[in-house]
Amino acid sequence: MDSLWQISESTFEKTTLHHKETIFTIGNGYLATRGAFEEGFPGDHRATFIHGVFDYVPISLTELANAPDWLPLTVLLNGERFSLDSGQVESYERSLDLHTGLLKRSLRWRSPSGFSAQINFQRFTSLADEHLLYIRCEVIPAFDGNIEIRANLNGCTDNEGYAHWQWISQFSNETATCLRSQTRKSHIELAAAMQLKAETGEVLESAAWDAENSPTRCLRMRAIPGKPVCAIKTVAIFTSRDTSNPAQASVDCLRQAPGWMAAFQDHSACWADEWERSDIIIEGDDEAQIAIRFNLFQMLIAAPRHDDRVNIGAKTLSGFGYRGHSFWDTEIFMLPLFIYTAPEIARNLLNYRYQRLPQARQKALSNGYEGAQFPWESADTGEEVTPTWIPHFTERNKLVRIWTGDIEIHISADIAYAAWQYWHVTGDDAWFIEKGAELILDTAKFWASRAEWDEEHLRYEYNDVIGPDENHDHVDNNAYTNRMAQWNLQTALEILEWLKERAPEKVTDLTRRLDLTPLRLAKWQDVIKKIYMHVEPDGVIEQFEGYFQRKYVDLAALEPRDRAVQVIYGIEGAAETQVIKQPDVLMMQYLLHDHYSSESIRVNYEYYTPRTDHTYGSSLGPSIQAIMACEVGKVEDAYEHFIRAVRADLRDVRGNAGDGIHAASAGGTWQAVVFGFAGLRITSQGWKINPRLPKHWRRLAFTFIQHGQVQVVDIKP
Amino acid sequence: MDSLWQISESTFEKTTLHHKETIFTIGNGYLATRGAFEEGFPGDHRATFIHGVFDYVPISLTELANAPDWLPLTVLLNGERFSLDSGQVESYERSLDLHTGLLKRSLRWRSPSGFSAQINFQRFTSLADEHLLYIRCEVIPAFDGNIEIRANLNGCTDNEGYAHWQWISQFSNETATCLRSQTRKSHIELAAAMQLKAETGEVLESAAWDAENSPTRCLRMRAIPGKPVCAIKTVAIFTSRDTSNPAQASVDCLRQAPGWMAAFQDHSACWADEWERSDIIIEGDDEAQIAIRFNLFQMLIAAPRHDDRVNIGAKTLSGFGYRGHSFWDTEIFMLPLFIYTAPEIARNLLNYRYQRLPQARQKALSNGYEGAQFPWESADTGEEVTPTWIPHFTERNKLVRIWTGDIEIHISADIAYAAWQYWHVTGDDAWFIEKGAELILDTAKFWASRAEWDEEHLRYEYNDVIGPDENHDHVDNNAYTNRMAQWNLQTALEILEWLKERAPEKVTDLTRRLDLTPLRLAKWQDVIKKIYMHVEPDGVIEQFEGYFQRKYVDLAALEPRDRAVQVIYGIEGAAETQVIKQPDVLMMQYLLHDHYSSESIRVNYEYYTPRTDHTYGSSLGPSIQAIMACEVGKVEDAYEHFIRAVRADLRDVRGNAGDGIHAASAGGTWQAVVFGFAGLRITSQGWKINPRLPKHWRRLAFTFIQHGQVQVVDIKP
Repeated sequence: MDSLWQISESTFEKTTLHHKETIFTIGNGYLATRGAFEEGFPGDHRATFIHGVFDYVPISLTELANAPDWLPLTVLLNGERFSLDSGQVESYERSLDLHTGLLKRSLRWRSPSGFSAQINFQRFTSLADEHLLYIRCEVIPAFDGNIEIRANLNGCTDNEGYAHWQWISQFSNETATCLRSQTRKSHIELAAAMQLKAETGEVLESAAWDAENSPTRCLRMRAIPGKPVCAIKTVAIFTSRDTSNPAQASVDCLRQAPGWMAAFQDHSACWADEWERSDIIIEGDDEAQIAIRFNLFQMLIAAPRHDDRVNIGAKTLSGFGYRGHSFWDTEIFMLPLFIYTAPEIARNLLNYRYQRLPQARQKALSNGYEGAQFPWESADTGEEVTPTWIPHFTERNKLVRIWTGDIEIHISADIAYAAWQYWHVTGDDAWFIEKGAELILDTAKFWASRAEWDEEHLRYEYNDVIGPDENHDHVDNNAYTNRMAQWNLQTALEILEWLKERAPEKVTDLTRRLDLTPLRLAKWQDVIKKIYMHVEPDGVIEQFEGYFQRKYVDLAALEPRDRAVQVIYGIEGAAETQVIKQPDVLMMQYLLHDHYSSESIRVNYEYYTPRTDHTYGSSLGPSIQAIMACEVGKVEDAYEHFIRAVRADLRDVRGNAGDGIHAASAGGTWQAVVFGFAGLRITSQGWKINPRLPKHWRRLAFTFIQHGQVQVVDIKP
Repeated sequence: MDSLWQISESTFEKTTLHHKETIFTIGNGYLATRGAFEEGFPGDHRATFIHGVFDYVPISLTELANAPDWLPLTVLLNGERFSLDSGQVESYERSLDLHTGLLKRSLRWRSPSGFSAQINFQRFTSLADEHLLYIRCEVIPAFDGNIEIRANLNGCTDNEGYAHWQWISQFSNETATCLRSQTRKSHIELAAAMQLKAETGEVLESAAWDAENSPTRCLRMRAIPGKPVCAIKTVAIFTSRDTSNPAQASVDCLRQAPGWMAAFQDHSACWADEWERSDIIIEGDDEAQIAIRFNLFQMLIAAPRHDDRVNIGAKTLSGFGYRGHSFWDTEIFMLPLFIYTAPEIARNLLNYRYQRLPQARQKALSNGYEGAQFPWESADTGEEVTPTWIPHFTERNKLVRIWTGDIEIHISADIAYAAWQYWHVTGDDAWFIEKGAELILDTAKFWASRAEWDEEHLRYEYNDVIGPDENHDHVDNNAYTNRMAQWNLQTALEILEWLKERAPEKVTDLTRRLDLTPLRLAKWQDVIKKIYMHVEPDGVIEQFEGYFQRKYVDLAALEPRDRAVQVIYGIEGAAETQVIKQPDVLMMQYLLHDHYSSESIRVNYEYYTPRTDHTYGSSLGPSIQAIMACEVGKVEDAYEHFIRAVRADLRDVRGNAGDGIHAASAGGTWQAVVFGFAGLRITSQGWKINPRLPKHWRRLAFTFIQHGQVQVVDIKP
């Protein structure tokens, strides 16, 4: 049983250093720390990211600033510094217990001079008090002499070369050492307070080095063969986002911090609660069981529990990729898990969007539109932070224009959809009246103003856009975009009716503030009625105007391949083909499932599936493809897509897991199990399931919350 | 007398922090260190730059990496850390002795708790052994208790946010501490070894903190009122550019390092030699005397004495501006000083260009030309490192295209000119035969291939270029460019004749390697004869085609102004006017002085002078303008331009001295005195002067070296 909660490795390979740093990330929804080694390793990408701690960076505008490093702990055996790149590693094991978020490393090392010891590290970031961080280091020497354990706070960190932190000051008292830093441009102050305590063994000497920007505490302990010595490093972190006096807060927090054992018990109890509501049990498929837990773990450590001013980045808090920016990945891929299992987290994430309506309105306005147009990439302020031009990879005189921030506009409907889905599942009318309705109405307003009237064909169009399938950009009338816009407008009109019943004063308020005149609402009706959507007689929905004329590629004939079709054909070459990076029409049918007949879904599944780059296209694709495969009864195909999704990071399928967790893929795996294999659907009466389990699964069980009530699903074939 | 060697200040102003860091830069031709405070100050731009230690940076491609910091030294009075931003500063004085490069700071500080002391810092970077750096710190307490002096090496530095250094390792022995770092992309290793020794006072405790990336040595000394305590920090720095084992070299160097007094004597003796050959004596004008020495000092501390693989950047080694890249500033503005006073330094700088002929040939080739086209901005490899696109200052969707790297082509002729001038003044035939001739011939080859034949007018043209006056870009037939190209071609043919006499085997070699066929040489003749140059009947040379049609601006009517005309009118607006950023036609007449009649010089001086933005245009302008004013007998005007040039950094005229010394301006001041006021000219018989001293000057004296012989010029009116 226990092994189904473990991610582990029994050898250390330099070549997978960054991948494994991502895999062994731990966190608590306030911060996360990559699985770098306490003592460091040449070329490591060690990082701790804290939600909302952004700072300016050239080109990408803003990024989560790799925080001052709380992790460093070095061990010296008779003066020789332990490191995996020196001496001899005689045994090595590392494991992450997903059930408690405890990261362990046990190894036997022989120093260059021949001093040998068993060294055991453990660490966790407390879920009971998210400002508290613990490392335990136990050394069992095979020699006589001394063991030195040094722990420091390191204010000198960078984001792949860009240094965000400047030293403010530092101080020490008898037991604690505190370092204060601040970000270069955004001026966020961070204070970290540290203590280092011997737990076992004879302390020969203890020292505090007030070295600037690297305050260090040291314990020199007697080494007696076979006798363990052990020390605990405890760190408390606060920023000026949390409190006006981070230094005081961190010192106070540390003073009151429970010891390792008590802290770990509190922490484990919190994790037990998390798993109680989030776990998925799969019997008969150990790989799937562990992998789904790993993906859920990644979601749970990234989810802000006590802060509604932040969102989850496309790489969670686990890597430098996408610089902590949030995309539609949150609302469409990650949010369902939270809506169904931890609605207060979903609400935090939606509040983040609600608070940023002013910036979304500004973006619409500056583009000549009305209402709220959300940014494709969003960070602290809610302004558009998609880079526009980035340096060309090889040619120094060239730049590459990134268009997503300009024309991948479907995100505004995705956010409206998420607000509606949250309300639909939780029944949180109060929130919906206060905030959710406005999100849907103001995005509808955007869609109506963005629609272009085609006088020749007497229809509304959305031209020059990018849909979910990013293999094709600057396309006209992307089906997903048009249909989601239509849904957004339709839903806006419906909730306005609902509000008239339930909160007439809110209708008055919104009508005034959003200028919801009868004329405007009539225009919405008109757009809903006349929005363009091309459907072939056989039921195939054209992904965008002219898609059918693009070149068909027999993807099977390209096998075996080890790279994306977009890489094989080039960006422009791929755009000329029908090969898509991820489901687009199918995605639309998934989200608006009740609006399509099973025949329509089947026809489109058959048409688009062989045209999709499932293996090396978008990591967002496989989980959705798995659900739609279940819909058309192809459970074996569904399993293939599902297993591809859960392996995305564990097996580093795309070779870029070192940049951080593929968060949308991780969130999608929960949907693949719940909406795909279990076939859960919310109905007007409550809910229903439609199990379509892979043959070898002997049980699938999980819980979810509908309208505040815990519901249990337990499926056995 | 002594005061004429001092740059000093008697108050500390936060607002001029960065400007003064530049002014109080010290160096020894191997490295330079900005005048930041040992103990640090919030927001300081502390930096040490080492010649040739470049590393990758986004957008600008490469930059001098701000080295691991050797400067940190903190003083604690009964545990309270001295800093100018806390407690009370009761007196303050800082001075730089130009004669010895000794930087002193003396102040009286009272800690927040009331402990008061006189603190005196001194530092120098040894000119006798350029790897050795010294700081002396003396504290005279007014209290009982203890004084702690802490010195560390700080591996955590950055270039305005970009962190270049990664920690390798560190170690300590009884007396020395060594830190090894390496640059992120270029993998240059740097080792710094440090010791801290008490010179005066009772040591209560001494400690070495092995804090990672910030190894620190501490001395706790007894404080007795009125009794000085004193410690010396000595640092040795080597990089992998100097030796294969920088750590060993730095430790060895430190072990053999002389003590403060002996080291300072050696150092001062070297400086005395430097001044012996370089000093300019001006009597009757103290400001000019100090300022010219300050400008010479800046040149002398930036000049590579023992390395011919490096050049001097446009901001020397004194700031982040222009990222350590070299421009024509070296050859045209700085080199004459070295050619005339320190020819071995001039040769080092020219060898740097010679070694980079392969990259210059590659640049020509990739542009479709022949021969050698030197990069507008050059760094370690000799490839073009001018940024092409930089982010717009205010609009995030926009980029600004920098064209100088593409079309400011005159630098190839400037380098050829410098090689010829070095030969002309030094008579170093051996070098010229081995290297100089090839520089001139291969740039000539470039010019002939770059010339465009105009069939309509039967003439050669250079179109779409930028001349020295950068207010106007994308111009055709810039007079300076066309004329210098012609000179380059003409000189190439002449030296080929000379070589036939003196080194026929070299002619054979070059003819083969550079493909100097009779046909090619005939083409050179043709270009020389038919190169386009527009001269009005009255003798005014048109700066570029169409310049006369640009709008005349009455610059006097814009006074008083506090910014460049290009800022007032905008980049495009200024381009439509006749206002030029710096002399262009006059620059050409200055360099090719013997080819123009005094009438031609007068006419062009009269025409272009009122059209030049002398005050806020290019910092390269005033010194050249001063020389040409002397030529036409306007000595008072010349003095005004000269004083503007020598004040460029001292008074921070342009507000950007914090980015580093305006090196071309500094080099130009020497030329203004020597070629302007003294009117020195090399003649076929030897040399002559034509003194035109400002009225209040009572004496102007200097020496120079012609053909290995020291020549003395001593002018009294």
